[in-house]
Amino acid sequence: MRNHAARGRPAPTRTFALVSDLFWPGDARAGSCCSEASYVAAMVQVERAWLAVLADAGLTTAAPLPFEGIAAGTLDAESAGNPVLALVSTLRDLSGNSWVHRGLTSQDVVDTALVLLLREAVATVREHLRAQVTALVGVVRDHRGTPLVLRTLTQPALPGTVGGKAAGWLHAVLDLVEELDALVFPVQLGGAAGTMAAAVELGLDPAAARAGLASRLGLADARAWHTDRAPVTRVGDALVRCTDAWGRIASDVLALTRLGLLSEGAGGGSSTMPGKANPVRSVLLRRAAIAAPGLASTLHLSAALQVDERADGAWHAEWDTLRLLARRTVVAAAHADDLLTGLVVHAGAASADLDAHDVRGEQRAMADLAGHPPAPTYLGETDRLVDDALARAEEHR
Amino acid sequence: MRNHAARGRPAPTRTFALVSDLFWPGDARAGSCCSEASYVAAMVQVERAWLAVLADAGLTTAAPLPFEGIAAGTLDAESAGNPVLALVSTLRDLSGNSWVHRGLTSQDVVDTALVLLLREAVATVREHLRAQVTALVGVVRDHRGTPLVLRTLTQPALPGTVGGKAAGWLHAVLDLVEELDALVFPVQLGGAAGTMAAAVELGLDPAAARAGLASRLGLADARAWHTDRAPVTRVGDALVRCTDAWGRIASDVLALTRLGLLSEGAGGGSSTMPGKANPVRSVLLRRAAIAAPGLASTLHLSAALQVDERADGAWHAEWDTLRLLARRTVVAAAHADDLLTGLVVHAGAASADLDAHDVRGEQRAMADLAGHPPAPTYLGETDRLVDDALARAEEHR
Amino acid sequence: MRNHAARGRPAPTRTFALVSDLFWPGDARAGSCCSEASYVAAMVQVERAWLAVLADAGLTTAAPLPFEGIAAGTLDAESAGNPVLALVSTLRDLSGNSWVHRGLTSQDVVDTALVLLLREAVATVREHLRAQVTALVGVVRDHRGTPLVLRTLTQPALPGTVGGKAAGWLHAVLDLVEELDALVFPVQLGGAAGTMAAAVELGLDPAAARAGLASRLGLADARAWHTDRAPVTRVGDALVRCTDAWGRIASDVLALTRLGLLSEGAGGGSSTMPGKANPVRSVLLRRAAIAAPGLASTLHLSAALQVDERADGAWHAEWDTLRLLARRTVVAAAHADDLLTGLVVHAGAASADLDAHDVRGEQRAMADLAGHPPAPTYLGETDRLVDDALARAEEHR
Amino acid sequence: MRNHAARGRPAPTRTFALVSDLFWPGDARAGSCCSEASYVAAMVQVERAWLAVLADAGLTTAAPLPFEGIAAGTLDAESAGNPVLALVSTLRDLSGNSWVHRGLTSQDVVDTALVLLLREAVATVREHLRAQVTALVGVVRDHRGTPLVLRTLTQPALPGTVGGKAAGWLHAVLDLVEELDALVFPVQLGGAAGTMAAAVELGLDPAAARAGLASRLGLADARAWHTDRAPVTRVGDALVRCTDAWGRIASDVLALTRLGLLSEGAGGGSSTMPGKANPVRSVLLRRAAIAAPGLASTLHLSAALQVDERADGAWHAEWDTLRLLARRTVVAAAHADDLLTGLVVHAGAASADLDAHDVRGEQRAMADLAGHPPAPTYLGETDRLVDDALARAEEHR
Repeated sequence: MRNHAARGRPAPTRTFALVSDLFWPGDARAGSCCSEASYVAAMVQVERAWLAVLADAGLTTAAPLPFEGIAAGTLDAESAGNPVLALVSTLRDLSGNSWVHRGLTSQDVVDTALVLLLREAVATVREHLRAQVTALVGVVRDHRGTPLVLRTLTQPALPGTVGGKAAGWLHAVLDLVEELDALVFPVQLGGAAGTMAAAVELGLDPAAARAGLASRLGLADARAWHTDRAPVTRVGDALVRCTDAWGRIASDVLALTRLGLLSEGAGGGSSTMPGKANPVRSVLLRRAAIAAPGLASTLHLSAALQVDERADGAWHAEWDTLRLLARRTVVAAAHADDLLTGLVVHAGAASADLDAHDVRGEQRAMADLAGHPPAPTYLGETDRLVDDALARAEEHR
Repeated sequence: MRNHAARGRPAPTRTFALVSDLFWPGDARAGSCCSEASYVAAMVQVERAWLAVLADAGLTTAAPLPFEGIAAGTLDAESAGNPVLALVSTLRDLSGNSWVHRGLTSQDVVDTALVLLLREAVATVREHLRAQVTALVGVVRDHRGTPLVLRTLTQPALPGTVGGKAAGWLHAVLDLVEELDALVFPVQLGGAAGTMAAAVELGLDPAAARAGLASRLGLADARAWHTDRAPVTRVGDALVRCTDAWGRIASDVLALTRLGLLSEGAGGGSSTMPGKANPVRSVLLRRAAIAAPGLASTLHLSAALQVDERADGAWHAEWDTLRLLARRTVVAAAHADDLLTGLVVHAGAASADLDAHDVRGEQRAMADLAGHPPAPTYLGETDRLVDDALARAEEHR
Repeated sequence: MRNHAARGRPAPTRTFALVSDLFWPGDARAGSCCSEASYVAAMVQVERAWLAVLADAGLTTAAPLPFEGIAAGTLDAESAGNPVLALVSTLRDLSGNSWVHRGLTSQDVVDTALVLLLREAVATVREHLRAQVTALVGVVRDHRGTPLVLRTLTQPALPGTVGGKAAGWLHAVLDLVEELDALVFPVQLGGAAGTMAAAVELGLDPAAARAGLASRLGLADARAWHTDRAPVTRVGDALVRCTDAWGRIASDVLALTRLGLLSEGAGGGSSTMPGKANPVRSVLLRRAAIAAPGLASTLHLSAALQVDERADGAWHAEWDTLRLLARRTVVAAAHADDLLTGLVVHAGAASADLDAHDVRGEQRAMADLAGHPPAPTYLGETDRLVDDALARAEEHR
Repeated sequence: MRNHAARGRPAPTRTFALVSDLFWPGDARAGSCCSEASYVAAMVQVERAWLAVLADAGLTTAAPLPFEGIAAGTLDAESAGNPVLALVSTLRDLSGNSWVHRGLTSQDVVDTALVLLLREAVATVREHLRAQVTALVGVVRDHRGTPLVLRTLTQPALPGTVGGKAAGWLHAVLDLVEELDALVFPVQLGGAAGTMAAAVELGLDPAAARAGLASRLGLADARAWHTDRAPVTRVGDALVRCTDAWGRIASDVLALTRLGLLSEGAGGGSSTMPGKANPVRSVLLRRAAIAAPGLASTLHLSAALQVDERADGAWHAEWDTLRLLARRTVVAAAHADDLLTGLVVHAGAASADLDAHDVRGEQRAMADLAGHPPAPTYLGETDRLVDDALARAEEHR
């Protein structure tokens, strides 16, 4: 293992909790999601599962691989361009088992470990979505009768209800639940050039080995996707679709907060203006929604620039991009929980707003056309939308 | 209808074939896909289907709406921010039927028409994928025994075959087939603020009306998604996943062309160097793959910035972005056909390249570890990958 | 010249006015900016100037090159990957002069022609900025005393004035004037691989030839930048900085329009709601601001992916991206003119808004701290900001 | 100060060195650049300088503000949406001086501190550029006579030299030097809504206060730019222009390494293939170049979405984006140093490559046209380009 010291640079000091709450307020909410420690643990988990595959084939005894004692900060990822060479050297030293990693390539370990991290991040987001559904069901039920001026292009358009508005958000959140539930998390196993040549040389049946590794890690079996990055972009697209949906909700909340019709339960303070309550959760959510598409775009670009059996940069650009996208989505999920759970509706102000604007112009034109007097309300299928959203939420319990 | 002349600006002269072959060479390949004429036709198709819904409800007689005679260039999209106000005015004038568009809003027409255009673009891409599958099956079959040095990070790594390489491409193309086949194309119908208030005031059953409109247009029934843009980003993501896959194939071809192991059937000429044959199809494909992620990203951003019942800019940013993404993907699909159909493998040079590099180092280490002499070949599961790809292609016939 | 017909495809029908008003409402405002006709004209202009350089060196007589008669639609850009091979063939046929293009390479012609188009687009934007300055000076002067609640994070914060707000916009617009005026538009001249080998073989002095070409076209002399794309990204960054600035103004206008404090002079109509006046100019401006960063990003990416003496896709990705960015910026410039010229301030509503909110909390805290009663106003240096902006605008006349 | 504990969540454990070497190999190279500790230190520096301004005006005695003892991990940035409220509370507690921060707003502190961090990052990049110039001067001098086949669109085009190729890189690096030297780093000082109302209420002269703060921090004086983010996008664009330039160099090196004409001094190892030397520095550089444009794009987008006197998300999206862009650019700068310093030219292979390809076709056509036999070489102005680059480098010493 080549290390930093050998090249005259001091080893970096690092801890496992890699957070940046100051630059991305709320980052700590994501806890150990995609932390360096989690990444090391996931890579060790992959090597351990593979060693078990080798042991099953009678090639080695599956001595347990250590994990404690491997600090992320001691692994040199720079010399080889990824951390696996250093990790394998460490694992072989610590375990005394030279069979560690035999038949694998760095990319098998990195990709599969990242899939494990992504699966965990998605599961966390999934949990948050459950809380959001619960919160939204409450808002929809409590305010299905609370009037709201529906606006288009910033201007008052038609009468509606707060419950109807929230039912639209609820449907969008339920769509996210379904999208995340449909994601597939595949194992990566192809060897040095995607052909499983080393495994075959060692006498393994490649298909059985892959199935065995997948099964041990609870991942989907899959042919090698070392230069076919659709498994990565699919997860990336799903995550950005989450922040898209919350971004829209946050923008709606901010627009209504500007008008004094809604407010966040616990607004943020100002460093100079006493008493000012800022819609901080919505602001932080919107921030996440603004920044996420650029990250997902980098994943697609990396997919598009693949070449050979390991790309010369496009693979490496994925890792931190995935870390950021996953962590930030988890943070945003938590903020969306807070926002929706604490949402305060100012029903009186909403009613006054409706009284202050004539939003029945279209109705009068329609009634005139149909040759009858305008109906007492003009809410269309709002009630059905509300019922439908509540019923769908019930199904997802 | 407000028009340009009324505001003192000359009416623009335009034609229906909107192409830019000089700025995006090959653009003409997309023909009328997402042209202005196609867009006008699609919007008229939506208004016509809606008029039939109104007629079914006994509100009007379904006089046929004209389409010929409406030149895109005569419609002022700028004054109202979208072309529907002008189109409706024209259609009412031409048909003499004031029921045209009653119960709809601009967004219903724009969104549904764009979905129709996207469905057609996807169908065209789908056809091209069929040709690519055929071409790749040929390459895989013809060259399953042709040797190829597999490279990682630009450097020789392991022995492989041209057929094995192409089998990887074939799997990626078959994935695209499955992804496109799974896309859903929903109707948009919500009225001015997504509540179907006008339709209800006119006496229509909103669910029945929506089902009727969807059925007439061959689209999926769906609740209003006027500010929930996942239906748009899903198509965008699928299209960029196509250019991602072709971008990787093109990069592979370019890397091998640089080494003299492959060439395009019909290379492009040089304006000054006689005899130079350039890999133009690969270059143009790679261009498309570089530019597409930014467009898909704009769609996500537009989804994330939705607000109210019609967003103040984020909706409008989608249209031309979708047009570009759809057209360019169709063009790239055609280029991928040409590239794969005409691909020339220089088997002799590929063999010489294999002879020139020692790519058995890993094998020797593995054999040593396993305690047997190295096997005569080191191709791992290449044959199985090839058979698997061919069998899967057969299923998709 | 290879042409479409020779490859069995029908020649596309095209016109010189390449606009997409339906997909990008307002596009016609950009007129012939970066149209295909303008592009052909610019390329002919480059070839003509180069022929004059050759004539000055005594190599040929500078017979005038034709331009009329070359329809963009007749040039095949696809076969060679760019339109120059086809253009040169046509020019040689029409002029009978085989010296046309000798010593040049396709990239010299394409890059220099695009620089000519960009220079023209920037000049047009520059003119629009002048109109915006005039309009904003008017708003600042007329409303320096009109009260306005300044908001932060959507919430009322401090008292201010409409004139002060507009003075901030004015400063931003004046910054754009200075940025555009500082842009450099360089000639591209390097020959087939950037070394001017052909020109030297023909007996030309490369530096003199380059200076001559630059001078004839009114461009800056510059060493070959065929794979150093900073000249492109600098223009791209400046253009997106324009839409950034207008995007912020539009967002401010939309936020204040939502509150009823401002409105556009001529609002857009609705297809179903009579009497609704939409802030269309602001919406279309904001649309441009949302979509532009992705385009500028593609230019940077293209710069980053350069390789060899002509990149295999990264160069080609620039062209249509530049066309879109330039055209859309020109359109946005026109929309910003309209918006600022027609802006209507609802002074009464703005006063009422100030009365309705307590925005003196910070002042009371400060006065308390300083030990004196609060001053009658709390406008800080608003007056100076206004004076400073007006004085700076005066300097830019 | 609201803190995590008060809201029932455990305080995160964090250290000041915020690195992610595993996800972004080489990240440790950036050291404390934009670390959380550096950020806290920079914010304290701003508050300290402002306190000195207040002291100069006789409002308080300038007791030294503590810095040691404020761990980034103890500051809650989430509750208020930024860390300043928590920092100010801590500083007031620790110093016992309630005048801390009076007259400022959070954004003044955050923006000015970020400018301080950016200035330092740019200075570090600037130092690395100096090393790159030195390395490139060596390559240019040593290899001005080493032959090289110049390629376009991956194919052999014309003869050239390694020195000539490197001279092109050198010019691009010298352009970066000039661009970074021209950057302006402005102070941010506007108070709660950009009007300096609090400062004026406290009796300060706003212009003098701003000049004083700028002078103490060594920053440029500037009017408040709280919602005019051009100062941010200009730095972002300059940084991405750096990775653009290195990305092109890395792509060139990778293309030539693929052909065996160049190699990195110290290649990276493989986890399974003994003896394989990978071009790791080039790969990591290219990774940075692929990911940077998306970040710069997010900065433009944030600029375009500004609204009110503090944007509802667009401001917050800048911070971590800037951190990533700055850190990664510093890391890439270090990688470019290594790459260029250690570059190994395989002159024999390069000569053989030239012998293997006929790249004189254009020359023969030109000589024929000019009516003389081909000159012995076909290098055009390569020598001048080399001399020019060396002379320019000399000027920048």
